[in-house]
Amino acid sequence: MTTYRTRHGGTLRSEDIGREVQLAGWVARRRDHGGVAFMDLRDASGIVQVVVNPEKAPASPEVLRSLRSEFCISVTGMVRARPEGTTNPDMATGEVEVAVAGLDVLSPAEVLPFQLDDRFDADEARRLKYRYLDLRRERMAANLRARSTAIRAMRHVLDDREFLEVETPTLVVSTPEGARDMLVPSRLRPGQFYALPQSPQLFKQLLMVAGVERYYQIARCYRDEDFRSDRQVEFTQLDLEGSFWDQDDVLDTLEAIASGVVKDVRDIEISRPIPRMTYDDALAMYGTDKPDVRFGMEIRKLDNIFAQSEFRAFTGTLADGGTVRGFNAGPQELSRAGFDKLTEDARELGAKGLIWMVVEDDGSVRSPVAKFLSDEELAGVVAALDAASGDTLLIVADEFRTAVTGLGQLRLDLGQPGNHDELEFLFIVDFPVFEPTADGGLAPAHHPFTAPLDVDEMRNSPETAVSRSYDMVLNGAELGSGSVRIHDPEVQGQVFEILGISKEQAEARFGWFMEALRYGTPPHAGFAIGVDRFVSILQNEQNIREVMPFPKTQTGADPLTGAPGRVEEEQLEELGVDVRPEVKAAWLEPPGNA
Amino acid sequence: MTTYRTRHGGTLRSEDIGREVQLAGWVARRRDHGGVAFMDLRDASGIVQVVVNPEKAPASPEVLRSLRSEFCISVTGMVRARPEGTTNPDMATGEVEVAVAGLDVLSPAEVLPFQLDDRFDADEARRLKYRYLDLRRERMAANLRARSTAIRAMRHVLDDREFLEVETPTLVVSTPEGARDMLVPSRLRPGQFYALPQSPQLFKQLLMVAGVERYYQIARCYRDEDFRSDRQVEFTQLDLEGSFWDQDDVLDTLEAIASGVVKDVRDIEISRPIPRMTYDDALAMYGTDKPDVRFGMEIRKLDNIFAQSEFRAFTGTLADGGTVRGFNAGPQELSRAGFDKLTEDARELGAKGLIWMVVEDDGSVRSPVAKFLSDEELAGVVAALDAASGDTLLIVADEFRTAVTGLGQLRLDLGQPGNHDELEFLFIVDFPVFEPTADGGLAPAHHPFTAPLDVDEMRNSPETAVSRSYDMVLNGAELGSGSVRIHDPEVQGQVFEILGISKEQAEARFGWFMEALRYGTPPHAGFAIGVDRFVSILQNEQNIREVMPFPKTQTGADPLTGAPGRVEEEQLEELGVDVRPEVKAAWLEPPGNA
Repeated sequence: MTTYRTRHGGTLRSEDIGREVQLAGWVARRRDHGGVAFMDLRDASGIVQVVVNPEKAPASPEVLRSLRSEFCISVTGMVRARPEGTTNPDMATGEVEVAVAGLDVLSPAEVLPFQLDDRFDADEARRLKYRYLDLRRERMAANLRARSTAIRAMRHVLDDREFLEVETPTLVVSTPEGARDMLVPSRLRPGQFYALPQSPQLFKQLLMVAGVERYYQIARCYRDEDFRSDRQVEFTQLDLEGSFWDQDDVLDTLEAIASGVVKDVRDIEISRPIPRMTYDDALAMYGTDKPDVRFGMEIRKLDNIFAQSEFRAFTGTLADGGTVRGFNAGPQELSRAGFDKLTEDARELGAKGLIWMVVEDDGSVRSPVAKFLSDEELAGVVAALDAASGDTLLIVADEFRTAVTGLGQLRLDLGQPGNHDELEFLFIVDFPVFEPTADGGLAPAHHPFTAPLDVDEMRNSPETAVSRSYDMVLNGAELGSGSVRIHDPEVQGQVFEILGISKEQAEARFGWFMEALRYGTPPHAGFAIGVDRFVSILQNEQNIREVMPFPKTQTGADPLTGAPGRVEEEQLEELGVDVRPEVKAAWLEPPGNA
Repeated sequence: MTTYRTRHGGTLRSEDIGREVQLAGWVARRRDHGGVAFMDLRDASGIVQVVVNPEKAPASPEVLRSLRSEFCISVTGMVRARPEGTTNPDMATGEVEVAVAGLDVLSPAEVLPFQLDDRFDADEARRLKYRYLDLRRERMAANLRARSTAIRAMRHVLDDREFLEVETPTLVVSTPEGARDMLVPSRLRPGQFYALPQSPQLFKQLLMVAGVERYYQIARCYRDEDFRSDRQVEFTQLDLEGSFWDQDDVLDTLEAIASGVVKDVRDIEISRPIPRMTYDDALAMYGTDKPDVRFGMEIRKLDNIFAQSEFRAFTGTLADGGTVRGFNAGPQELSRAGFDKLTEDARELGAKGLIWMVVEDDGSVRSPVAKFLSDEELAGVVAALDAASGDTLLIVADEFRTAVTGLGQLRLDLGQPGNHDELEFLFIVDFPVFEPTADGGLAPAHHPFTAPLDVDEMRNSPETAVSRSYDMVLNGAELGSGSVRIHDPEVQGQVFEILGISKEQAEARFGWFMEALRYGTPPHAGFAIGVDRFVSILQNEQNIREVMPFPKTQTGADPLTGAPGRVEEEQLEELGVDVRPEVKAAWLEPPGNA
């Protein structure tokens, strides 16, 4: 047996002075003074200074000379106090150093492809190609630890509440619903395919039918979308479901999870209870179903103020059934060009225009449209938006959704904090059952297994019917969503009918699921939290890739391993599939991980 | 909000008598006496008797009549003592019952496709098709709970030891090594493929390079083999790895895991330390690298006894470099036909023959070959095998491996307990680095990233070189295996060379991994435990499918959902692949989940 260390270097303190220790880790930094090498030795516990005096001959001069950054070494030596004036109060081990008596190179390191320094980032493709080096940086190591801690905290909450962890299959049947499935050809049934799950939705509902009353899983899910900057082809969600549950049971569990995770990762308490806001209120006040409530700037309705206005842009909109909305962006001190840019942004967001006002020191209102408005109207706006001198007010007159979503985006652009030091959770409740599709039909707002609040309402006015679904939002990001599910196969059939799915289609796609509902299905409800997003916010990272150990690029490639790659003809033959001739023809180079 | 229950029925006890409760669950059994219905109401906590007297009108007569097995209901009522003489000491709730005052059918159940009774099993295909009903059976529910408990226990041990849980990718590059990869066509890179991982082996080694000193993951893995009864296309392993680790560190961690899991699932202590046995000893004494040590019958070497024998079958074998081995099977009382059957079994196992002996009451030895053997030889065998009167002795003279593996299998056939009430863990250590292939080459005995005990020995006599790999065995089943890994790229190159993998091939297949080893790779070691097998043994199940929530059949199909299935032409077109014409031609029926 080989022993590489007797202590973790980052744990050494002044009470260890005088102890003989063996340490192992990586050379994080080396400075030579008067022939003596001072090295920061890094291991998972932290960093400690080790001092190599070649006159004490801990290793050959060649070895000592060769020691570069990221060599993996093992040293023996005595812990001693650092000389006066050289202690470092910023380091946990800053009072001590280890005088090296013996040194072994466990593994040399070639010249690094980039500096492992948190202060500047290498190009991301390069970081991913050498991810095993990138992850040695303190920021990335902290992200990995935070992710592990967050997931452990989730489990603790759910274990305490007697949830069962159940693993659902990841080779499932493809259901032509929602996003594209990733497919896996079957060898034993050539020409047939498994799909990788977009979520364990139907299996967790089956578990409820099976009498598993509390289920959770940290589930790997797959989504074959055109990549956006913050999406990955595989991602992780905390998936949970409970029987004999209603919405409050789910939200109570989520609050405990949010609280436990933040406590363990950030060591702070979140404010409880987590506020709840209806979908309608969120849209009206923030122009979005995932409001960032860390800052104010709520959108307000100004229709009454302008009901009798001479200003045609307002009254015309109101007459057409539109609305006038605005918010107080506070002191912004924008130039004319700045306002022009905002107006342009608003137009790009679909609004016909944007009206800005600035409250001057004397209480008057400066605005390109001031001359069209009465003093009462201007005073009304100032009052409605609680405006003080110096505040910038932004107003849009348009169809409701256009007005609030446009203002909501401007609100974010002007007010949203750049970091996540503050954490504001929020539940959005009472989502609609359906949302209109481009072709005038209806699509599920959540998914087609979501229970309506009222079955009759859903049948009679599906466009406005409210569902029993809810989202969890953190700092303006949707962490996840859930719902009370339909447990009555008749209601499930009605939802499919409203969605324009015929009985035959429903049977072909979901027949096996519909049948399961017919054997005493308990009322049930659940949720799924996106782990990647949650951890990235807790870690103040803008991109989920920073909290994933080995993420893929936006085109789904792994620059480290070369995945995806080409495969041998024989492998495909066994699967009963082939690469299409036109694709092959487009390959000019020979097969390989090109 | 709807409340479905105020208590879990299975938790009611005599101290609850007089309490008003609301319960929800399933009708497990119904008996009618004198117009009163006695029902066992089952929920996740257990079963309680509820009594419905129609004269108390808790529900309409039609509803009461309709209540069948597995209806999901909610009842309100008073907990009361059962009448004298009707208490049931076998039930946790056997002293009480609930007098129902109100009853709601939450969800009716159609006539069941099979009885949910642990005493007899329905046909497995039928059980899998209705898995959501099968899992309601107490035995299956207990298996799900045990699996969740076992995994939680593993995590507790590893969390306490400051392991990080890290999720490695499941869309990886295909490496033409070991079993077949399951492939996933990429849409963004048409004609290219991801593979699903057979294990996280290389990624966990990369995590060690990355400075994650303690890693674990409950990892879903994939193996596209021709199915055997106890294999599944997707399976779960506890995967772990540590840096600056040697074999003892791994085995110490595994022992803590085994102990923690058995304690939590079975509530017993395992005997510690877990014994260690070399691969050579295991083979010699038990004829296998996964000995079941719950019973004796060790194989012994009898060469010395027969060195000078007149019996040509023995001396001839010895002269040819073979060996004579035997074991004491204890009192077996086999008929002549029984011995003939054993002999036939031995031949099927590859042995040239089998010699049996029975020690008679008077100490003499009965055997077809007794007449060819001297009294000293017979007495020598009796002494060497510690035989007493009535014992059956079985002997094979053959080439070493044939002799011991044949005897090892007979030993299992005659002695292995049918259940797993007793648990005997064992570590097998000192496996060979390589094993011979059919074509005279060498293949890795473990995998090609396993460190040899001695690099020079590996180079000079690869056939006999010992590796730093080890297995964990429970009751004769291999729970998992691991090794100290190669952390020196030069040694890794030498292993590839001995395996007949050229530098160019090694570079093409594993170049990215070999490069990672060049940046200060710490010495590291690890292991993987098969969760499915471990839990099945703890639960006394013969087949891992019984401890998997939604397993597939031996041909990889899911009778419940119909996976795998056919998919639309357009889906494949986007992926750049197509089902081969000959496969399509073989489909007579129209597309669907045929």
